[in-house]
Amino acid sequence: MDHRVINFGAGPSALPEPVLEEAMKGLLNFQGTGIGIAEISHRSKEFGAFLSNVESLIRSQLGVPSTHSILFTQGGGSAQFSAVVLNFLARHRLLHPELSGEDPVLDYVVTGSWSKKAAEEAKRLGGSKVNIAADARKHSQDQKSFDNIPPHDAYTFSADPALIYYCENETVDGVQYSNNESAPSSFPFHLLKQGSLLPLVADYSSSFMSRPIPHLADHALIFAGAQKNIGPAGLTVLIVRQDCIVDVDAAAKLGAIPVPLTMSYKTLADSKSLYNTPPVLTIFISGLVLQRMKDQGGVEYYAEVNRRKAEKVYEVLKTGKSKGVLHGKVKEGSGSWTNIVFDVLGDGLEAKFLAEAEKLGMKSLKGHRSIGGIRVSLYNAITEEQTDKLVAYIFDFVEQNAPQSVQY
Amino acid sequence: MDHRVINFGAGPSALPEPVLEEAMKGLLNFQGTGIGIAEISHRSKEFGAFLSNVESLIRSQLGVPSTHSILFTQGGGSAQFSAVVLNFLARHRLLHPELSGEDPVLDYVVTGSWSKKAAEEAKRLGGSKVNIAADARKHSQDQKSFDNIPPHDAYTFSADPALIYYCENETVDGVQYSNNESAPSSFPFHLLKQGSLLPLVADYSSSFMSRPIPHLADHALIFAGAQKNIGPAGLTVLIVRQDCIVDVDAAAKLGAIPVPLTMSYKTLADSKSLYNTPPVLTIFISGLVLQRMKDQGGVEYYAEVNRRKAEKVYEVLKTGKSKGVLHGKVKEGSGSWTNIVFDVLGDGLEAKFLAEAEKLGMKSLKGHRSIGGIRVSLYNAITEEQTDKLVAYIFDFVEQNAPQSVQY
Ligand SMILES: Cc1ncc(COP(=O)(O)O)c(C=O)c1O
Ligand SMILES: Cc1ncc(COP(=O)(O)O)c(C=O)c1O
Repeated sequence: MDHRVINFGAGPSALPEPVLEEAMKGLLNFQGTGIGIAEISHRSKEFGAFLSNVESLIRSQLGVPSTHSILFTQGGGSAQFSAVVLNFLARHRLLHPELSGEDPVLDYVVTGSWSKKAAEEAKRLGGSKVNIAADARKHSQDQKSFDNIPPHDAYTFSADPALIYYCENETVDGVQYSNNESAPSSFPFHLLKQGSLLPLVADYSSSFMSRPIPHLADHALIFAGAQKNIGPAGLTVLIVRQDCIVDVDAAAKLGAIPVPLTMSYKTLADSKSLYNTPPVLTIFISGLVLQRMKDQGGVEYYAEVNRRKAEKVYEVLKTGKSKGVLHGKVKEGSGSWTNIVFDVLGDGLEAKFLAEAEKLGMKSLKGHRSIGGIRVSLYNAITEEQTDKLVAYIFDFVEQNAPQSVQY
Repeated sequence: MDHRVINFGAGPSALPEPVLEEAMKGLLNFQGTGIGIAEISHRSKEFGAFLSNVESLIRSQLGVPSTHSILFTQGGGSAQFSAVVLNFLARHRLLHPELSGEDPVLDYVVTGSWSKKAAEEAKRLGGSKVNIAADARKHSQDQKSFDNIPPHDAYTFSADPALIYYCENETVDGVQYSNNESAPSSFPFHLLKQGSLLPLVADYSSSFMSRPIPHLADHALIFAGAQKNIGPAGLTVLIVRQDCIVDVDAAAKLGAIPVPLTMSYKTLADSKSLYNTPPVLTIFISGLVLQRMKDQGGVEYYAEVNRRKAEKVYEVLKTGKSKGVLHGKVKEGSGSWTNIVFDVLGDGLEAKFLAEAEKLGMKSLKGHRSIGGIRVSLYNAITEEQTDKLVAYIFDFVEQNAPQSVQY
């Protein structure tokens, strides 16, 4: 196949073609240095300027206040599952030296596979008690699926946790917090202790830069791998409130778990993300994507487009329109804008759905192996026109395969 | 500047132009999938096949035995400074549960800035006693520089260390172990306890794939960042003997420091390096470089070329030839094939050396900020012709600037 298909994959995922073309030029010669971007020193002034521009592009589009630093690292979201625990246990230890010997509590909201994994890592690392502040499975139809965002009265936060953790968009299960504060599926910021520097951590891996971040300034840490909306895999972006950049060595002396140097937010902050060699090429491509976003109207513009894209797909999942052929897996109001999951009902129809889509040049629609079915990922690089093409195909497929039209 | 220069940088560093051109095609469309390599799922069969081929390319060229696994991760050499300590302390704890409560000893050989940093991280993480098995500074001319590989009688290894650590090539200081076993600057394998599974760890970050690895099979772990000889920054290659892939959770229960999940070699091994999203694009480019190496005659071929390249540069540093203009920083016999460091003597001459080189299209020759001077990095992608061009320039420069030809 010599042309590009539409890639609805969940990550690594589609990138804008104009960016890839720009990246190709940079591979041979970065900004007229005569050196390709994968070959240039991370300490060169050209790369330094590029990196600080990447930071500005994030800061200005998301409105990150000066209380928060933007840092870059490697290891993906999974490395952050450990890093948040270690850094926030260290912070708590320094804030409460008098509690030395006691295990601080970590609050985890579990709404899907990713927050579940994060909570498991907190338990694994030990030295702490994990409180599941809410578990969406308890509020699901079958008592075991991650098919909803729990109602506000489902949350029980601890008095002084070292960490309050949630995942804004569950990539596998297709549930996402609403960005409308008055929606029942919004994150319950109002239930948190007000007026203090909360240790609130959010995993934004699959929704970063897809729309503005509600209550951004109230977060202690927001993290995201680049490989969904902004670039290739191999780069992690952190937005950290400065009081959470702590001296992990001093904390270790008070009994906190020692933190590997490259996982310490202080190491990253003190070196402006250049403690060791960063993934220069990945940062470059991410910067090109972020620049293109800005040129097109920024994250607000993308939020509008992304909302429309998602609405179009959810529209065909509505009972009347899906005619018994499709079944949305997620409760109304809890559905992700980014990852939309549904089942194709009927013997062999799922395979047919995938095969015919592929013939039409639409790929990577298979759901995550853990839950099966179909997953449509609509990251920023998927255009409205591409979404329209998919939606038209789905309508067509429903027509062709709705029970009344099946001929025996 | 619209043409490419010769990039003698220490890393990220030069990559072969044909590989970059191939990479450009892959960015738009990977192996006819219609999806670019930065966009494709790491769980796709196409990427899976590519990854296992990358493994084979390393295994076959270096002759890695089946006792050793080849794993891929993120975080660079610096993350391994921590990971080796945590994984090998866990291993030691499991081997010696009876020593619970005691701090095992870690042996570090310090021959330059990088092994010094690694030893510091071992001390930082605590829970262990660090024994400096040899310190090259004690054997230097001024008692403080890393200008040599210590003689064999300088080493004192512990009886049962959890780790024996050395850095094969010190990128900053320009010293490297000889690959000739009878040379005084070879690594003293014969001094290590024979016939046991030694916890021998080597940092090969800047010499990986530049020549065969002596005593590879005796190593517990060899690690290297990709960003010198094989690819862009953001990928770390590990060659691990299987007895060093241990259940870190069981060790933690016996009192070992808990290991972040993505740093555990067991996590990487159990998932065949796909526990979480790997840096797909970086792996792709590295695979292209490794394939090209193989096509050209493999690591043995590169070793020959690299030896000749280095000899040519060292030749002009010889006292008779450098005419008081240049001064090699490293003791004879300890010099690296990959990073050659020297001073340009005389007021303002260093700046002139760099500026004139740059005019001739040769860049990134400045030494590391910690030691100054000039550093010539001759990674695999630097050809013999490019080296010849540099050597001709250096000879010329010496001629032009040798004291007898200076006119007052
Ligand atoms: C929401 C979320 N969190 C965490 C991760 C893990 O990221 P990584 O694979 O980069 O470790 C993912 C990966 O898809 C994700 O979607
Ligand atoms: C020998 C050696 N070890 C370790 C490192 C650290 O690697 P990284 O920057 O990928 O953490 C380097 C980097 O240049 C190196 O040359």
